[in-house]
Amino acid sequence: MSAAKTLDAPVPPGGTIGILGGGQLGRMLAQAAAKLGLKSRVFCDNPKSPAFQVCDAHTIGKFEDLGAIAAFARQCDVVTLEFENIPAETIEHIADLVPVNPGARALRITQDRVDEKNFLRDAGLKTAPYFSVTSDDYFESALLMCGEPSIFKTRRMGYDGKGQAKVASGNELAEAYARFGSAPGILEGFVDFAFEASVIAARGHDGSFAAYDSPENAHENHILRRSTVPGRLTAKQNEDAKQIAKKIGDALGYVGVFAVELFAMMDGALLVNEIAPRVHNSGHWTLEACAVSQFEQHIRAVAGWPLGDPSRHADAVMENIIGEEAAHWADYACRPGALHLYGKPEIRAGRKMGHFTQLAPLTRR
Amino acid sequence: MSAAKTLDAPVPPGGTIGILGGGQLGRMLAQAAAKLGLKSRVFCDNPKSPAFQVCDAHTIGKFEDLGAIAAFARQCDVVTLEFENIPAETIEHIADLVPVNPGARALRITQDRVDEKNFLRDAGLKTAPYFSVTSDDYFESALLMCGEPSIFKTRRMGYDGKGQAKVASGNELAEAYARFGSAPGILEGFVDFAFEASVIAARGHDGSFAAYDSPENAHENHILRRSTVPGRLTAKQNEDAKQIAKKIGDALGYVGVFAVELFAMMDGALLVNEIAPRVHNSGHWTLEACAVSQFEQHIRAVAGWPLGDPSRHADAVMENIIGEEAAHWADYACRPGALHLYGKPEIRAGRKMGHFTQLAPLTRR
Repeated sequence: MSAAKTLDAPVPPGGTIGILGGGQLGRMLAQAAAKLGLKSRVFCDNPKSPAFQVCDAHTIGKFEDLGAIAAFARQCDVVTLEFENIPAETIEHIADLVPVNPGARALRITQDRVDEKNFLRDAGLKTAPYFSVTSDDYFESALLMCGEPSIFKTRRMGYDGKGQAKVASGNELAEAYARFGSAPGILEGFVDFAFEASVIAARGHDGSFAAYDSPENAHENHILRRSTVPGRLTAKQNEDAKQIAKKIGDALGYVGVFAVELFAMMDGALLVNEIAPRVHNSGHWTLEACAVSQFEQHIRAVAGWPLGDPSRHADAVMENIIGEEAAHWADYACRPGALHLYGKPEIRAGRKMGHFTQLAPLTRR
Repeated sequence: MSAAKTLDAPVPPGGTIGILGGGQLGRMLAQAAAKLGLKSRVFCDNPKSPAFQVCDAHTIGKFEDLGAIAAFARQCDVVTLEFENIPAETIEHIADLVPVNPGARALRITQDRVDEKNFLRDAGLKTAPYFSVTSDDYFESALLMCGEPSIFKTRRMGYDGKGQAKVASGNELAEAYARFGSAPGILEGFVDFAFEASVIAARGHDGSFAAYDSPENAHENHILRRSTVPGRLTAKQNEDAKQIAKKIGDALGYVGVFAVELFAMMDGALLVNEIAPRVHNSGHWTLEACAVSQFEQHIRAVAGWPLGDPSRHADAVMENIIGEEAAHWADYACRPGALHLYGKPEIRAGRKMGHFTQLAPLTRR
C-alpha cells in the first residue's frame, strides 16, 4: 500500500469536497461547503439520500465497492465522511488517491468500543468502568468489575441504543451475549451522573484546535432529545471539556470535527462516554448561535482552511424532531426559532426528521 | 387568459419550489428551501449558474422561451424569482399553470421607474422629486422641477448604477437622453440625505406582515459596500421604515420578501428611493443574526407557510466581497465572522463574489 495522500495546500473556492454518506449530516456538510464556495459530491447507497438534494453531484454506490469508491474519489479534491461506520478499508483505499479525513486510524479506534475505551484510558482520561467480553469465561468477573446492573454492548456498529442490553447478573449477561450472536462485546458500569454533556471540537491539518462551548444533553429512549447551551456546566467544566477534547484530538492525530460525549458527575468531574469522529447531533445549535457552524468547521478542517472562530453570539436550545413529530411541521413553523427539516422521503419511528433551535441573547461570554 | 393560479394550502416538506434565476440570490433561496425540507428547481440561462450547485434539479433555458418555462413550472408546486427583470409576460404565463410570486403586477410596477414613483406617490409616501422624460420637449422644465444637478435614468432594466447619468443642464440631459437611445426615462432630483438605509419585509398570502430591523447602507461606485444593523437609525426611524414597507406591501398585494431602499434625511424623515421585489443584498446579515433569514422568509411566504419571527439575536455588519477582493478568500477565512462565497466560476470587476458578516452580541432590543 502506498502512503496516504496528504493535503499540500488548502482546497480553493470552486474545489470539490467528497462526502461519504448522504443523511442529514452529509446534507448539512454539503450546505456548509457551498457557503464557502466549495462544491460537494456525495456518495451513498440510498438513492433517496437527503444530501443528494443539495449537492453539486452524487454517486449511488456501496461503501464496500472499491471500484466505485475510487472513481468517486478521483473527482474530489478531498474526501470526508458523515458517519463512522464506513469500513476502514474503504478509507484506506481512498487515502491512496486523495486526502481523506478523518483517517483510518481514528475510525478503527472509535469503531470498536473496547479499543476506544483503551485509547481513552491511555490518554489519561476517566471513563466508566469497563470489561472486554470476548468469551463466556469471565461473565461473573465482568459484573464484579463493573457493578450490577451494567450495560452490555457489542464492540462495533451500535448507535442510538441499538445492540445494547442492561444486565444485572452473570446469567443475564450470558443471555445478552448469546442474543447478540456471541460477538465480542464490552460491559460498561452504570455511571451515576448529574447530567450528560458533550464537547464539539475541531482539529486542523496543522494541529490547530477549536472547541465550541459544551451543551448539556438530554436523551430519551437512547436518542438525543435536547441540547442546551449554556446548560448546567460550570465555567470550569466547560474548560475541562475543551481540554479533554484537545487531548483526544491530539492523541488521534485527528483532522476534522469530532464530538466527545461526557458524563458530568456530582463532584464536577467529567467522564468520557464515547467519541464520535464526525459532526454531531448535539452541535446542531452552532448553525445559528455561532458564526462558523460545526459543519463549516469540519469542511474548513478537511479542506485545509483555517479553523473558524467557535465563539457563540447567542444562547440556544436545540430539540430533535423525531419520527411522527415531523407531521407537525406546521406547528414548528409557527414557533420563534430555527426549523430544520432534513428532506427525508418518509417518516419512520425513531428517525431523526429535523431539529428546532430556540435562540436567546447571549447570557454568558 | 385564464385566472392566475392561487395557493390553496401550504406546500408541505418534500414539495418543490421553482426559482427563476440562478445567481447568488437564487442560490441562497435554494439553500433556505432545503432548510425547510423543500426541494428546489432552478431555471436560468447561464449553464454555470451558482444556484445549480445547491439545488435538487435545474433547467437551462431563456426566460422568454415560454415552452421551456411551462415545462419547468409544471414540475414545481410554486414558482418564485430572484430578480425583478424577468419579463412580466413570463410570469403571467407561469401564473396560468402554478402559483407564482411576486406576481406580474408587482413586477410591472417595480420594473418601471416612473410607474414605481407614481405608485409610491399614490401610496402617500415621500420620494425625491422626479419627472417623467418621454421626449425632448421638457428637458428644461424637468431640471427646473428636480433641481440641478439631477440624475437621469432609463425607466427600465437598470441596476448597480447602470443606465444612469448625472446631468446639470438641459443640454446635458439632452445628451444623456440621446446616449441611452432616446428611450423613456426619469429625471430624479438629488437628495441631501444623512445616510442610506433599507427595510427588508415580507408579506404572506394571508396578508400577514413581518419586517426586519433596518440596516444602514453604504454604497461605493453605486454598489452596496456595507450594511450595518443597528446603524444610525433611531428607534422611530426603524419603526417608520417598517410602516413604509407595510404600506407598500399592502398596496402591491405582494407575496414574498421585498426591500425598500430609503434615504434618511437630516430631519429624521425617510424618503423612498426604490422598491426591490425580491430578497436584497442589504438583508444578507439576516442569515446569521435572525433565526429566520430573509431567504427562508421569502420561501415561507411563497410556499404559504407562516412568516417567521424577524427579530434579531445579534448585531451585524455585512460587507460585500466584490471582484478581485474574492482572491483574498484566505484572509477572509481568518477573520471572525461568517464568510459566504457564491461559487461563481470567475472573478470579474464589480461582480458580487460573496459577503462577510461580522457578528456581535445584541446591543438594542
